[in-house]
Amino acid sequence: MKIYGDLISGNCHKIKLLCSLLSIGHEWIAMDIMAGDCRQADFLAKNPNGKIPLLELDDGRFLAESNAILCYLSSGTDHLPADRYLNAKIFEWMFFEQYSHEPYIAVRRFINKYQGLPAARQAEYEAKFAGGEKALGIMESRLSNTDFLVGKSPTIADIALYGYTHVADEGGYDLDRYPAIQAWLGRIAALPRYESMPST
Amino acid sequence: MKIYGDLISGNCHKIKLLCSLLSIGHEWIAMDIMAGDCRQADFLAKNPNGKIPLLELDDGRFLAESNAILCYLSSGTDHLPADRYLNAKIFEWMFFEQYSHEPYIAVRRFINKYQGLPAARQAEYEAKFAGGEKALGIMESRLSNTDFLVGKSPTIADIALYGYTHVADEGGYDLDRYPAIQAWLGRIAALPRYESMPST
Repeated sequence: MKIYGDLISGNCHKIKLLCSLLSIGHEWIAMDIMAGDCRQADFLAKNPNGKIPLLELDDGRFLAESNAILCYLSSGTDHLPADRYLNAKIFEWMFFEQYSHEPYIAVRRFINKYQGLPAARQAEYEAKFAGGEKALGIMESRLSNTDFLVGKSPTIADIALYGYTHVADEGGYDLDRYPAIQAWLGRIAALPRYESMPST
Repeated sequence: MKIYGDLISGNCHKIKLLCSLLSIGHEWIAMDIMAGDCRQADFLAKNPNGKIPLLELDDGRFLAESNAILCYLSSGTDHLPADRYLNAKIFEWMFFEQYSHEPYIAVRRFINKYQGLPAARQAEYEAKFAGGEKALGIMESRLSNTDFLVGKSPTIADIALYGYTHVADEGGYDLDRYPAIQAWLGRIAALPRYESMPST
């Protein structure tokens, strides 16, 4: 099994983290987002959407979308309970992550940390602040009542949200204002075989 | 089981369509997006993210996010195969829908059809065009080779993508340029118990 990814991306780090937590063996194919590796023809033949992470199974089949890859890799484990409601609830949080969290927090982090907050994106950067605050507020409210987002133990919902939440400060968010999120980040980081995002 | 929704929303229509195709009984609670029903305190107590559709189970538990609701409702049916790869592939398409399709096609439709393309959103409307074209191109490529997005029969991946694709013209997209998508839309509309979006 091969995983194409770049560890500056929270979406890619999610996959690396789950593989570590569940001791899933794989070959990591390092891609360089900033160098345009995802826009090369050979990669577009693998994923026409030109995005990483991308999973390649041993039989040559591909699977894209970070949260779909988390679903595949955690199938049959405690990280993706079979209970019908809990299972769907995990996907609720993962769709929330991709629609209501990532487009604000991850995009602001990219503009700020990797593009150096250029003047051309200043207005967009500011306009996206409120959406990220709303997403963090929803998480804070939930995590004030429970240790993990769904059920009583960590699931791929936590892994998916951890990806960009734990580096939200790099997108200009003050996590000190969210004590329940801070405590939850600590619980994730304390899991056996936890693997941190490389500092760059 | 109650479903809170507004049928001008493709995200809500997805749920109505699946319920019809699978003959799932439910009580439809009509919400009025344009009147601000989703921002009222009583609704925010049900879904802090203030979005519809929202599913309320008979025991009072809630489930948000249209594609998570599709997952819950189709559990155990042919619309969500248990096969590990096909199952994950369905989620790949649904995450694609929420990240790479809906923010362009559905948002342009909303700006154009429901807001009357105000001058203040003209630049955003134009900037979003290319993202929708890319998404339709990826679908066209896939549907040139297969009747349905995943496997040989309709799944919730098709229902999820059908939602806003079949009304993409209302967001300024010319579906005549996508013959494979057109044929697929026809296959969905020909399914037994198909229920169309009300014309407004």
